[in-house]
Amino acid sequence: MEMKEIKLEDLDTKNFVKEKVSEISAAVGDALAINALSGGVDSSAVTMLGHKALGNRLRTYFIENGLMREGEPKRIVRLFGELGVPVEVVDAQKEFFGALKGITDPEEKREAITRVFYKDVFSQLVRKSGAKYLLQGTNYTDVEETVAGIKRQHNILKQLGIDTEEQYGYKVIEPLIQLRKSAIREVAKALGLPEEIYQRPPFPGPALAARVIGEVTPDRVEIVRRATRIVEQELSRTGAFQYLAILHEDRVTGIRDGKRDYGLQIEVRCWESKDAKVGWPTRLAYDVLEKLSDRITGEIEGVVSVTYSITKKPPSTIEAI
Amino acid sequence: MEMKEIKLEDLDTKNFVKEKVSEISAAVGDALAINALSGGVDSSAVTMLGHKALGNRLRTYFIENGLMREGEPKRIVRLFGELGVPVEVVDAQKEFFGALKGITDPEEKREAITRVFYKDVFSQLVRKSGAKYLLQGTNYTDVEETVAGIKRQHNILKQLGIDTEEQYGYKVIEPLIQLRKSAIREVAKALGLPEEIYQRPPFPGPALAARVIGEVTPDRVEIVRRATRIVEQELSRTGAFQYLAILHEDRVTGIRDGKRDYGLQIEVRCWESKDAKVGWPTRLAYDVLEKLSDRITGEIEGVVSVTYSITKKPPSTIEAI
Repeated sequence: MEMKEIKLEDLDTKNFVKEKVSEISAAVGDALAINALSGGVDSSAVTMLGHKALGNRLRTYFIENGLMREGEPKRIVRLFGELGVPVEVVDAQKEFFGALKGITDPEEKREAITRVFYKDVFSQLVRKSGAKYLLQGTNYTDVEETVAGIKRQHNILKQLGIDTEEQYGYKVIEPLIQLRKSAIREVAKALGLPEEIYQRPPFPGPALAARVIGEVTPDRVEIVRRATRIVEQELSRTGAFQYLAILHEDRVTGIRDGKRDYGLQIEVRCWESKDAKVGWPTRLAYDVLEKLSDRITGEIEGVVSVTYSITKKPPSTIEAI
Repeated sequence: MEMKEIKLEDLDTKNFVKEKVSEISAAVGDALAINALSGGVDSSAVTMLGHKALGNRLRTYFIENGLMREGEPKRIVRLFGELGVPVEVVDAQKEFFGALKGITDPEEKREAITRVFYKDVFSQLVRKSGAKYLLQGTNYTDVEETVAGIKRQHNILKQLGIDTEEQYGYKVIEPLIQLRKSAIREVAKALGLPEEIYQRPPFPGPALAARVIGEVTPDRVEIVRRATRIVEQELSRTGAFQYLAILHEDRVTGIRDGKRDYGLQIEVRCWESKDAKVGWPTRLAYDVLEKLSDRITGEIEGVVSVTYSITKKPPSTIEAI
């Protein structure tokens, strides 16, 4: 497929959808295809394109890794169900938390999640399903950052442990590879996805594990999950590009019931960006910042401190891990 | 001495100075007294009171622990020299860094600093000087927080390893014990100390070690020292109660020369407070926050992220350790 960027101002969404649907249709023919849906805008758009092209010859899986936001995957299954797209949930929480146990190094953590996702869980599904085609939501920024060495290598077949594409006939289809995030949102809208999906802030693959500095345990994920819910409730109306809560490993002094205590710190980030390539912290009103802090320290036991990230990207990145 | 609080509105500074000078004079008589000057407003006010009462029967030491701000202790020695108060510098950097090596637990760190200061360094000076009286800048908030269990026990003789006050005749004089910070600033002003002292933001005992989460090494202290200088340059004109930079132990992702990198994070805190008992983050303009971040990430190698603390005290504390 074509690899040149299609800029937002040059994008004809109707035409783009029509083209991609017929490309997928032509590529897969009568075979089966498979994709993993996370509920983010990229994988949601891919799911819709694949469904339009292939109908029930597309198998869409939602992999429950225990690292998702509150209420997922139920919400996603219901939402796609209403659009006529069946989604199968695969419970892999045990596999993910097992692989993450004792790991504190951010890169090892990321590798463990990638390995479990691709090698342990998704590759099983691919083999069992008999699918020969994988639909994948890779976008133009991913490619660029892989080339620049900012993100990790993005070779899905290698990550699936499939080195012999020719022998087994696996093919990867990446229909969004020419688009950046803002263009993908337009495509998602044109595909009939609801605003809560096409306007959804990015939520990268390692999900809440990317929001936990230090060891990722069910308890620590639960803390950052609750902080994430508060941040999303308070910041969704800002229209910011992305907003997130990060649980630090560092402990800081606080006061609990009048006594000195070492507690947890949550870092909040809220970004202005068009494409995640560069970004600026949103100039949130102090009323909003103070409400965030009051809610997070008041509603989540053990948290005594909340900070707001004030560094632009670069030298920061959007996420902390 | 009297222990009841003197509130700012009830304070007659001239009268207070006169009373304390005569109390110290009467208590010490012809004996020698000693005190440790850090350059903060409390120990500076005590030094001036002691000097007025005792002249050269007061020995004032500045203990160089390697954990002080840039340009100290030279600045303090010169400043007090101009006021006619001799200050002797004691180089104890080796002792402090030796005791801090390998310690990451905040409470153990604080204990190591306290132990080295009192047991290893200051107790030697007390014994060598022949002084029987110790002047100490304990204030009303310290007493209150000790009682409430927020701060550690504050028994200076016990900390000096002197359990038998009666036997050796050591006496502690705490002339500021009835005052909170805002009242001490008025007293310091009345004592002829320059504005850079009497308006100086608090800088507690463990100094920059209280601003390093994780192990305190000369290199890590140097990083937070440089961040502290930038924060003080940018925030001194705000008139805030206290402002500080904290080096985190957690590492976060950043981009350096276009490549992904794990770097350091500095947290900035800036407080509105009257007495450090309760406090609110200053509502700094985003222009100021962004300049802080640009300077800290631009001027200090390895720092990729800067955050601003948005939690009030309580449940936060002023410092992070």
